[in-house]
Amino acid sequence: MKLLEERIIKDAVVAAKDVLKVDGFLNQMMDTELYSLCADEWYSKFADCGVTKILTVESSGIGLACITAMKFSVPALFAKKSNGLGGKRDLLSAEVVSFTHGLEYDITVPKKFISPEDKVLIIDDFLANGSALKALIELVKKAKAEIAGIGVAIEKAYKGGGDEIRSYGYRLEALAKIKSIDKEKNIIFD
Amino acid sequence: MKLLEERIIKDAVVAAKDVLKVDGFLNQMMDTELYSLCADEWYSKFADCGVTKILTVESSGIGLACITAMKFSVPALFAKKSNGLGGKRDLLSAEVVSFTHGLEYDITVPKKFISPEDKVLIIDDFLANGSALKALIELVKKAKAEIAGIGVAIEKAYKGGGDEIRSYGYRLEALAKIKSIDKEKNIIFD
Repeated sequence: MKLLEERIIKDAVVAAKDVLKVDGFLNQMMDTELYSLCADEWYSKFADCGVTKILTVESSGIGLACITAMKFSVPALFAKKSNGLGGKRDLLSAEVVSFTHGLEYDITVPKKFISPEDKVLIIDDFLANGSALKALIELVKKAKAEIAGIGVAIEKAYKGGGDEIRSYGYRLEALAKIKSIDKEKNIIFD
Repeated sequence: MKLLEERIIKDAVVAAKDVLKVDGFLNQMMDTELYSLCADEWYSKFADCGVTKILTVESSGIGLACITAMKFSVPALFAKKSNGLGGKRDLLSAEVVSFTHGLEYDITVPKKFISPEDKVLIIDDFLANGSALKALIELVKKAKAEIAGIGVAIEKAYKGGGDEIRSYGYRLEALAKIKSIDKEKNIIFD
């Protein structure tokens, strides 16, 4: 998506080696006009997949998931980050190992919110190692629902998480795919 | 807002004395069609206030804030819940004392995201004692910006937080104002 790539070039900050900050328009301050265009793009890609629900994980995926859900006229749902709730009977849970933050935590959604009839489109802002996405996929599988597809705004392709997820047979659509960030902090798209 | 009141009667669960669960349509599963109608309502009330930014706090306010921001064609911004980050120089912070969860925590936003020229509309899903809203107001004041108004979806009027905030002179618009929940778990609106 040309417009997202241009916005990344214009406003993203390469803070340190491999740290890409997009909090000014994507994941804390949220440019909802850009969000709407991202949602249009996912709609054009997944419109014929029978999507019944949009799933994301708190917090930075929620805005994109909501605006995407509007386009599909379906509900949006977010998994909560939690610790020690994994065993609760009314919750589906999956473990996330975050390489970025050096953390392990569970994400959960109430069982009643995903049924085996659902076709779930998973949406998130960022994909690097894919640990959060893999946990979201696990939640949908535990609910015995179908994964209609996965949409992420920015994929750090060189981290390998996206290709790993594609290798499992999932259709994953990234709107901006970063091939590399060079020593001069130039961002190269795929 | 009649439609929101009807939805609360239909789908909210009074779990225990004074615990109102609306996670099936408002604050975990998100009915974005309802969100859009809520946003229209806030737009009709605050359209002439020169709003430049929508502010909320993670996580359950983010969806409503984003869809409201779309109607106003302005960015949405969320404050993050954090501990021990209050002293960081590039962050504005304020303390929240949550009666519901018996917690104290800080909420923060990067200073760069709110300027003195901003007219901020604060949006949240729920208002009871008003502790989160008061912290959001404090963040805007610390940024020397103006508060254009405050919109909440559901106000538990009997908790007093809304009236306290109105007494400070802020314009606070609740779309559904609950006067009481009686012993038979009937929800009475104001």
